[in-house]
Amino acid sequence: MKTMGEIYKMKRFLTLVILLNLVLTVPVVLADDGMWTFDNPPLKQWKERYNFEPSQEWLDRVRLASPKVNGSSAGFVSANGLIVTNHHVAAAYIERLSSKERDLMKTGFYAPTFSDELKVPNGEASILSSYDNVTDRIRSVEKDAADDVEAATKRTNEIATIEKDCVDTTRLRCAVIPFYSGGEYWLYRFKVYTDIRLVMAPEEQAAFFGGDYDNFTYPRHDLDFTFLRAYENDKPASTPNYFKWSATGAKDGEFILVSGYPGSTARLLTVAQLAYQRDVGNPLQKQVWELRRRALERYSKRGDEEFRQAWPGMRGFANSLKRLEGQQDGLLNPRMFAKKVAEEKDLRDRLKARPELDKQFAPAWTNIAAAYDKLPKMANRLAYSNVSASRLATIALQIATYHKEVAKPNDSRYPEYRDSRLGGFRSSLMAPASVNLDLEEAVLTDWLTDARRILGADDPFVKAALGDAEPAEVVKRAIRETTLRDPAARKALVEGPASAVDSSTDPMVALARRIEPIVRELRDWNEKNITSVETANGTKIAQARFAVYGKTMPPDANSQLRIEYGKVLGYEEDTTLVPYKTTFYGLYDRALSFDLKPPFDLPERVLNARTKVDLSTPLNFVYSADTIGGNSGSPVINRNAELVGLNFDSNLQKLSNRYWYIEESEGSRAVGVHSAGVIEALRKIYDADRLVGELLGSK
Amino acid sequence: MKTMGEIYKMKRFLTLVILLNLVLTVPVVLADDGMWTFDNPPLKQWKERYNFEPSQEWLDRVRLASPKVNGSSAGFVSANGLIVTNHHVAAAYIERLSSKERDLMKTGFYAPTFSDELKVPNGEASILSSYDNVTDRIRSVEKDAADDVEAATKRTNEIATIEKDCVDTTRLRCAVIPFYSGGEYWLYRFKVYTDIRLVMAPEEQAAFFGGDYDNFTYPRHDLDFTFLRAYENDKPASTPNYFKWSATGAKDGEFILVSGYPGSTARLLTVAQLAYQRDVGNPLQKQVWELRRRALERYSKRGDEEFRQAWPGMRGFANSLKRLEGQQDGLLNPRMFAKKVAEEKDLRDRLKARPELDKQFAPAWTNIAAAYDKLPKMANRLAYSNVSASRLATIALQIATYHKEVAKPNDSRYPEYRDSRLGGFRSSLMAPASVNLDLEEAVLTDWLTDARRILGADDPFVKAALGDAEPAEVVKRAIRETTLRDPAARKALVEGPASAVDSSTDPMVALARRIEPIVRELRDWNEKNITSVETANGTKIAQARFAVYGKTMPPDANSQLRIEYGKVLGYEEDTTLVPYKTTFYGLYDRALSFDLKPPFDLPERVLNARTKVDLSTPLNFVYSADTIGGNSGSPVINRNAELVGLNFDSNLQKLSNRYWYIEESEGSRAVGVHSAGVIEALRKIYDADRLVGELLGSK
Repeated sequence: MKTMGEIYKMKRFLTLVILLNLVLTVPVVLADDGMWTFDNPPLKQWKERYNFEPSQEWLDRVRLASPKVNGSSAGFVSANGLIVTNHHVAAAYIERLSSKERDLMKTGFYAPTFSDELKVPNGEASILSSYDNVTDRIRSVEKDAADDVEAATKRTNEIATIEKDCVDTTRLRCAVIPFYSGGEYWLYRFKVYTDIRLVMAPEEQAAFFGGDYDNFTYPRHDLDFTFLRAYENDKPASTPNYFKWSATGAKDGEFILVSGYPGSTARLLTVAQLAYQRDVGNPLQKQVWELRRRALERYSKRGDEEFRQAWPGMRGFANSLKRLEGQQDGLLNPRMFAKKVAEEKDLRDRLKARPELDKQFAPAWTNIAAAYDKLPKMANRLAYSNVSASRLATIALQIATYHKEVAKPNDSRYPEYRDSRLGGFRSSLMAPASVNLDLEEAVLTDWLTDARRILGADDPFVKAALGDAEPAEVVKRAIRETTLRDPAARKALVEGPASAVDSSTDPMVALARRIEPIVRELRDWNEKNITSVETANGTKIAQARFAVYGKTMPPDANSQLRIEYGKVLGYEEDTTLVPYKTTFYGLYDRALSFDLKPPFDLPERVLNARTKVDLSTPLNFVYSADTIGGNSGSPVINRNAELVGLNFDSNLQKLSNRYWYIEESEGSRAVGVHSAGVIEALRKIYDADRLVGELLGSK
Repeated sequence: MKTMGEIYKMKRFLTLVILLNLVLTVPVVLADDGMWTFDNPPLKQWKERYNFEPSQEWLDRVRLASPKVNGSSAGFVSANGLIVTNHHVAAAYIERLSSKERDLMKTGFYAPTFSDELKVPNGEASILSSYDNVTDRIRSVEKDAADDVEAATKRTNEIATIEKDCVDTTRLRCAVIPFYSGGEYWLYRFKVYTDIRLVMAPEEQAAFFGGDYDNFTYPRHDLDFTFLRAYENDKPASTPNYFKWSATGAKDGEFILVSGYPGSTARLLTVAQLAYQRDVGNPLQKQVWELRRRALERYSKRGDEEFRQAWPGMRGFANSLKRLEGQQDGLLNPRMFAKKVAEEKDLRDRLKARPELDKQFAPAWTNIAAAYDKLPKMANRLAYSNVSASRLATIALQIATYHKEVAKPNDSRYPEYRDSRLGGFRSSLMAPASVNLDLEEAVLTDWLTDARRILGADDPFVKAALGDAEPAEVVKRAIRETTLRDPAARKALVEGPASAVDSSTDPMVALARRIEPIVRELRDWNEKNITSVETANGTKIAQARFAVYGKTMPPDANSQLRIEYGKVLGYEEDTTLVPYKTTFYGLYDRALSFDLKPPFDLPERVLNARTKVDLSTPLNFVYSADTIGGNSGSPVINRNAELVGLNFDSNLQKLSNRYWYIEESEGSRAVGVHSAGVIEALRKIYDADRLVGELLGSK
């Protein structure tokens, strides 16, 4: 007993030392901090802390073995295109393959042979093939601009040119991506696989055991994995860069790395921006999501089938709300906020010590603060003047906007309507979407009712949307009488002349036409008064940071490939210890402790396997790597690039790492499925021997 | 999933309703609140909430089946004197039966036959045989007193007379016990069993699995039970009043009752008293216990044997500190404190509405507040001017005090030196105690060093104890040269003339002689300025409460028999659900999740049984009854007075219920060992079939 107690005492002491240290020398990279780009991995920290010195070949292999799937992360795990990701990442794919009669979310799926693998409609996986720094090219066009607005225009144009050249030359997907709030720009080239097939998925109830209650929670017991396969030319793709599957998996204290696509962080935000998030932005976002969730909930009470339809959306909002609450808890923590204030002060003090820099950069903070002063009184209008609750209304609005945008020169358009992106825009617009009219009608009616209540009947958006009519009336007609459910009708409107939209009698198109100018006006206001100021001054702050600290910190996450690291490690919570792993014993304990009541019920196959499974096999585990939403499905690998686990969540303590990295001593942890647990489940629960053979290389 | 979510939503709504209600009509008994005396059980609440209407025979049987063991609770569970209590309650007994060679704490114990049962030195169990209200008798002597001091003297004398008469008449143990801060006085008569034998105990590591980390924690996995047996005339005692053991045990949502000896609560304290606890008392107590624990810890590092010696004390202080921290968290919770303030205000407002009562009672609050104003500057002296860290020094001080006290008339003495208690005092003083000299020397040296540092070298206690010498020097001589380790030497000093103490050259006696006047002076100051004011005015406040609310609330706990109730119920914590029970699956999960590292290691017998035990058997469970320290070992029974579990702890959320009952919606729960889990362990782990037969009545 002494040993563990002493370890923890030492940890507390070290925390204290680190905190004291902080006060003196902020900001420094303090711990296993950072979502690093592959062009700038934290080689120094790896060597010093973990004696890890990867070769360039190691880094390239990890990058090329890390596809993005459905906006999240995944890993190649065989040379034949086999992909592992989370069940909740692949859920949209599994749902696309499901119907009322064949509900793969409920039953799970396993393809015993290649020919049983199910092709996912519109499935996609992409890897970052190569990248180049194009910052100098962007800077060179910006530098002659008269003001920030002109600079933004020039930058946007140059980015469009670079992207178009790249597509023309390589036939790859190309995008110029800003990092460090625009401190750097990189051209990323992606190889895209468009034939993706489902190989194996557990039942959702096993993958999402414990439901929303256990989301962002640990100890955890989820079989949150799914296997897909990339195909090329109707054959399994050849993927020589893949992660070897570790049959034994992550060990206590082991150094691990995580490769994936963290969505977004806000670590370089100024104190003014964070204070706005805390005081206005987050509470407003919470209100919006709660209204959206409530609308779905109301609908779900109509019956079992309606519940099934609304459930993915309800789950999504519940998930977002829990995450938002964790983030807000962090912002409301005075100690953490004070640390942020101290970091900003340190940077600005160092600038003051160098007057030439100060003169150049100090106005950036003042400008952002001034812009944010204007935001609160516009916040409600910006939040509620939209129709994103409805897929059909969104399509109609996009079509109306499309015609106004394509009439302009390419470089004056909104980014998503530029030539380089129009292909993707059109195909997503024309994809056959399974739209449920009852659901659409219910949630859009609720949304417009809420908008009217909050904005008032005289608000321009509300007046444009409703006139003097009731939301139920307007929405019913628009949803019931529109032809936009038919992709051919959408195609006709997109490809026809703008006048076809102007003269359309489709009531949904008419609704879109009425609100389009209001939505546009608000977007323009926001871009002129807030976004462009943030971008221009964020760039300056990022440059100031470069000037003061060099490139010692990673840029904010932006859904692009990153590598993170840390170690497998339990923690202390509420005066007791939380173990680094859970076992199958724990899964059955949690299910039976609740007498198998939902959401702690188990699929029959999983429940029955309790006498076959080696119950001591690790199931889930935690580690200190700096991950965030988007990292779902990320391979957790050891120094030999073997896959020891699959990232799928964070615990509650970690949620405010959107704004700052939280010390491991605070109990902030990422949660993964253990690689040994996956093998045990495939063997003993799902009889998926072919797959185990492919993973462990013993066919 | 909907069902459970909705239950919780409804619960939150009800909580809100209750809170709103609170503001209007405090105080009322709001929930399953209260540690009720058997003379005033909450029959109305039982009937209204649980349709439970026990007969007087039911109440008598439960009372007589509920012995106090080692200051805590227990239950008779067969007609042959079989007692169940917690392992941690019986631990002092098990230790008394252990030696370095035969460590029953480590190995556990099971007596396959009656003759194998081990007699515990100085073991004791007592039941509350009968009781009478003597309030009128006390009031009649108090009423002619000139002031509070005289009233206290008269009361003390009358109590001594009642107790002596009772002992003379009944040969039972008798005590007059104040309830409601002296609002009522009851004469309690106890039947005492003095031949107690050990029947079965698991290994401490199974009983206290998870150690201090898992103390005050839930989910929990402890086999915290031990079986003893009361003997009379060398035969198993006949105990016709006992609890039938339920083989199936507690169920989700079931109404349960708890019968036992809650130690102390402070629910009738005034806001001034609680503010003192929060701002001065608790922080000081924390400091004292931390110093005491640290001294033991230092000693424990000398070696394994020293660790074994110091461990029970370290565990005790760790336990006390965790509890204190939970209590203090409650006091520091502004919402809870505000509720207390509102309750006090409600009482005082109602008094104001009745001027004749207000005149009589309002000064009570002012008087207590005035007394507490004097306390902070004396607090350090009161806390540090003692030698209770050392058993030998305590004995010496008691002997010195004894002679000064017995020289006085009976009714002028400190209560513990009155004739009615002198028998017990002497026998405890002369009991052969296993005193470890090295340990005594180490901790007393540390204590006096700390006292000198905190009080200063010029403090009267420090000067009396040390003069100009160093603590190490004074203590070494006193511990090494004293003869007080020998019971005969103690007997000689107690029974000899006072002059023998005055002239003794025993250095420990000399130390006691020097500090005795200081300790006495401080005790007298405290009694005159604080305790008597608290008692007198606490009585008035209790009377005021009677006048306003009647006897609708139970009195504060005072280590006397109470009955509590509630239901078996999980709760919500950190956005997830905590189940009402744990299973053996959970025990093995927690052990193996930590790779069996202490304190999550398992005795070999328990670990090996994992393939034999039915892993889904309930192990521990939680319920909403209003319990507190002292309730350890309490039978948890159903409406048929069958034992469905054994109370052994509370979760962290419950610790501040010292000061107020915490709503079940806040997640405050008592923790018990499940009766089915005990049977499964006895059968499959400990092969204790004789015992199972006796419990289930199928010999």
